[in-house]
Amino acid sequence: MKIALLGGTGNLGEGLALRFAKLGHEIIIGSRKIEKAKQLASEYLEKVSKASITGMQNEDAAKECDMAVFTIPWEFAFDTAEKLKDYLKRKIVVSPLVPMKKVGDNFVYVRPEEGSAAQKLATILTESKVVAAYHAIPAKRFANLSEEFEWDVPVCGDSEAKEVVIELTEKISGLRALDAGDLSNAYLIESLTTLILNIMKRNKIGEIGISFR
Amino acid sequence: MKIALLGGTGNLGEGLALRFAKLGHEIIIGSRKIEKAKQLASEYLEKVSKASITGMQNEDAAKECDMAVFTIPWEFAFDTAEKLKDYLKRKIVVSPLVPMKKVGDNFVYVRPEEGSAAQKLATILTESKVVAAYHAIPAKRFANLSEEFEWDVPVCGDSEAKEVVIELTEKISGLRALDAGDLSNAYLIESLTTLILNIMKRNKIGEIGISFR
Repeated sequence: MKIALLGGTGNLGEGLALRFAKLGHEIIIGSRKIEKAKQLASEYLEKVSKASITGMQNEDAAKECDMAVFTIPWEFAFDTAEKLKDYLKRKIVVSPLVPMKKVGDNFVYVRPEEGSAAQKLATILTESKVVAAYHAIPAKRFANLSEEFEWDVPVCGDSEAKEVVIELTEKISGLRALDAGDLSNAYLIESLTTLILNIMKRNKIGEIGISFR
Repeated sequence: MKIALLGGTGNLGEGLALRFAKLGHEIIIGSRKIEKAKQLASEYLEKVSKASITGMQNEDAAKECDMAVFTIPWEFAFDTAEKLKDYLKRKIVVSPLVPMKKVGDNFVYVRPEEGSAAQKLATILTESKVVAAYHAIPAKRFANLSEEFEWDVPVCGDSEAKEVVIELTEKISGLRALDAGDLSNAYLIESLTTLILNIMKRNKIGEIGISFR
């Protein structure tokens, strides 16, 4: 599968790029700046052998891919979606977006009036298949290929695209994907990340993933 | 410590009763009906040796205790709080309340306008120290003393009472209590339970707890 990681220059993008590339998928790192995308693609390539990782501008990445992950800060995600809308028609679009703000030392979930960031994305990308996933994956640890973990990934979506994302995710060693319902439930998995960040901050513990057991 | 489990006739009440009693706390099972409270207290007593578990009406339980847990269905919790308000002054009150409704097969978090059920409880019990905890503990498994687990318990609260609840909770083998911030964050731990119920339902898995790792 051709998977574009739009704005995939951060840690979550890196982790997904490396781990999907290892499984044989063709990875496209998208960025606003082609130089940055190409540079990161070549850095990531050094970490996995025999992989396909290419850097492109977000527009080309969206055009080329079968599935796009919005690994973009949520404040910019909706504008980016407007720009890429036509290229993403009929494609799977994964939203790991967590809309939040920091008030003092505390993270607050900012629920969009559409119900969630994923639903807001879906109101823009009306002809794409939006799936919510990957919100609570500890990005730095995930990008470290020697890290061992057993994390759960709740996934929300309205279409059969949810099943595709669940299957793709389960192939990554250490991840278990769990159906968490329709896209209207996405607020529950988005806000969970806010909780995790507060727990990390308050208890002075490093990056933590989630596991239901 | 004298711990009242108000409406403690359900599974979460049973689990907390048995496990706190084993640690040497004096447990009071509260119910609207004295007969039911007494009957359950004697049933619970058979499961733990040398323990103190007494059954009382909710009013007397509230009067006698140092700390009360609202193990009451959330729909009835606020009326009960109004009635018990005077008895609970200056005491720790723990809210495991999860306000939600079922729409078809799906659980939806019903966020009270006060911000959370815990905050709504605090607006009634203005002279009590309300702490939010124990929402996502799998009640049946928790009530089974031969069950082994490693679960995390996020705790929210505004006062030093939060520290008391964290310390009490950590004494229960298999539970780790985590500071999740002020009571204004309680919506994050309440809604997490809604997510867990949806995951159980959709993936046809039994009771699951949560673990951050």
